[in-house]
Amino acid sequence: MKVTVLTGGVGGAKLVLGLLQVLPAADVTAIVNTGDDFRHIGLHVSPDIDTLLYTLSGKANPALGWGRADESWNFLDTLRAMGGPDWFALGDRDLALHVLRTARLAQGQGLDAITADFARAMGIGAAIVPMTNDCVATQLDTDEGRLDFQHYFVARRCTPHVRQVHFDGADAARPAPGVIAAIHGADAVLVAPSNPFLSIDPLLAVPGIADALVATPAPVVAISPIIAGKAVKGPTAKLMAELGIALANRSIAAHYGAWIDGLVIDLGDDAPPGLAIARTETLMRDHADKARVAQVALDLAASIAG
Amino acid sequence: MKVTVLTGGVGGAKLVLGLLQVLPAADVTAIVNTGDDFRHIGLHVSPDIDTLLYTLSGKANPALGWGRADESWNFLDTLRAMGGPDWFALGDRDLALHVLRTARLAQGQGLDAITADFARAMGIGAAIVPMTNDCVATQLDTDEGRLDFQHYFVARRCTPHVRQVHFDGADAARPAPGVIAAIHGADAVLVAPSNPFLSIDPLLAVPGIADALVATPAPVVAISPIIAGKAVKGPTAKLMAELGIALANRSIAAHYGAWIDGLVIDLGDDAPPGLAIARTETLMRDHADKARVAQVALDLAASIAG
Repeated sequence: MKVTVLTGGVGGAKLVLGLLQVLPAADVTAIVNTGDDFRHIGLHVSPDIDTLLYTLSGKANPALGWGRADESWNFLDTLRAMGGPDWFALGDRDLALHVLRTARLAQGQGLDAITADFARAMGIGAAIVPMTNDCVATQLDTDEGRLDFQHYFVARRCTPHVRQVHFDGADAARPAPGVIAAIHGADAVLVAPSNPFLSIDPLLAVPGIADALVATPAPVVAISPIIAGKAVKGPTAKLMAELGIALANRSIAAHYGAWIDGLVIDLGDDAPPGLAIARTETLMRDHADKARVAQVALDLAASIAG
Repeated sequence: MKVTVLTGGVGGAKLVLGLLQVLPAADVTAIVNTGDDFRHIGLHVSPDIDTLLYTLSGKANPALGWGRADESWNFLDTLRAMGGPDWFALGDRDLALHVLRTARLAQGQGLDAITADFARAMGIGAAIVPMTNDCVATQLDTDEGRLDFQHYFVARRCTPHVRQVHFDGADAARPAPGVIAAIHGADAVLVAPSNPFLSIDPLLAVPGIADALVATPAPVVAISPIIAGKAVKGPTAKLMAELGIALANRSIAAHYGAWIDGLVIDLGDDAPPGLAIARTETLMRDHADKARVAQVALDLAASIAG
């Protein structure tokens, strides 16, 4: 059963880790948001791709929730002492990926090929594919003006009031090689419980991806990011409130629209009408949680496919 | 007494450290070889400038003889694990300078302004000025073909037989702002006991610098890199043999030519005719050695100036 997952960072990485417990790695493809990518001190940082790489290779930092385990911070300390920008924390080990990626991009290599090599070097069997090799930048119109995503998310800690979300460059972006084929050729397409507005919408903004989701014969199942009427983490709840969207599964279903066939929701939450629904505890704390949520999503997809 | 020093890396840094014990920092200018500069994984590395920065700020690594103290190597370990190039060792703290310099160069800032800011951030009172803001690359014609300096020096550990030394780009390079004025306006110009062929010749290859050395009214005093008929370190002796040049002070004097007025030599070595000579133990092990060699060079310059 070939499964393709649309994903942002942490939540999606957990779901993919669950899938890898119940499926052969070669059957799993993650299409990853790159709207959070940015240049920092000249280095190309791909936060969601790196979260996938670190999580799937067992190198994620469990205490921080970002970056990698066994990290040191001597680069950052020295950068700060030199008067360099220290608002975005780059660990010494983490830096190796950014430096190598930046150098290869400068040579004209695609982010897809670079990411595939990184995944191979880290022993990851699943395919990790950026949504696009082109530059798409998530930006937010806020009460402090238009902010780049990392400025909003890290430097301003999601404090500004968001009025609208933009994906700068998306109009001209092309899906990375393999993206459309992975959606058309899958037996099931899953949408990770990532932030729909910040982590999944960038993928949908790349011309061709939304059309492929409508056209694919595979069932498309989303896992809701809402648990017990709340968002697990990150700015989802605050952002939805600021956008005037109720924090409910019906909002998620309405936002994604006709191209999703099913929704996995938490035990006590609202079940949007008109969709195949599966319920489970969707909070993914340990390996067993992740495998269970993944299996519930796959079972729902199988039941939709009939 | 305003003193300007032409210098490469380690030996020159020691001499400047000596000068700073006997002169106010504001009166000392180091004009530094950038022929060893290169791009590594997209990062602009300036080995001689960094040796000056680390040595003068007390951050040099005394055990390695290069790089900085209190260093860690997690970036390099990770880079190696990712299949990246590990032949040039970039420490985690050292990396901060390369990343920051590369980003500022990409913004169009000059290496001179960047270096001055770095020196200020590291509490260095002396002026550290790159010989040029333009790209000059020391390359060696060897029995293995033409090699970039760092490839010859680090990757091949000076093993190839050198036939000729080139300074690629020197013809079109301009002295960095302040270089010519520092030579003309000095009360004494010193040439550090760096490798004449690899560390001082690149400066002389930048149009305008050799002319300024001829024209300056200041006495010009070189400190010989030869001690007891040997070269202290690095590839000097091997290189001179390969170029068919006797390892003697008379060779150093002949190589520099008419623009030097005096030479500081070790106690038992040959004294080239036609030059003002001062003798002292020129091996600079501790702070007292460095101050003594600096003072002997200044005294010789003062006696020449009359």
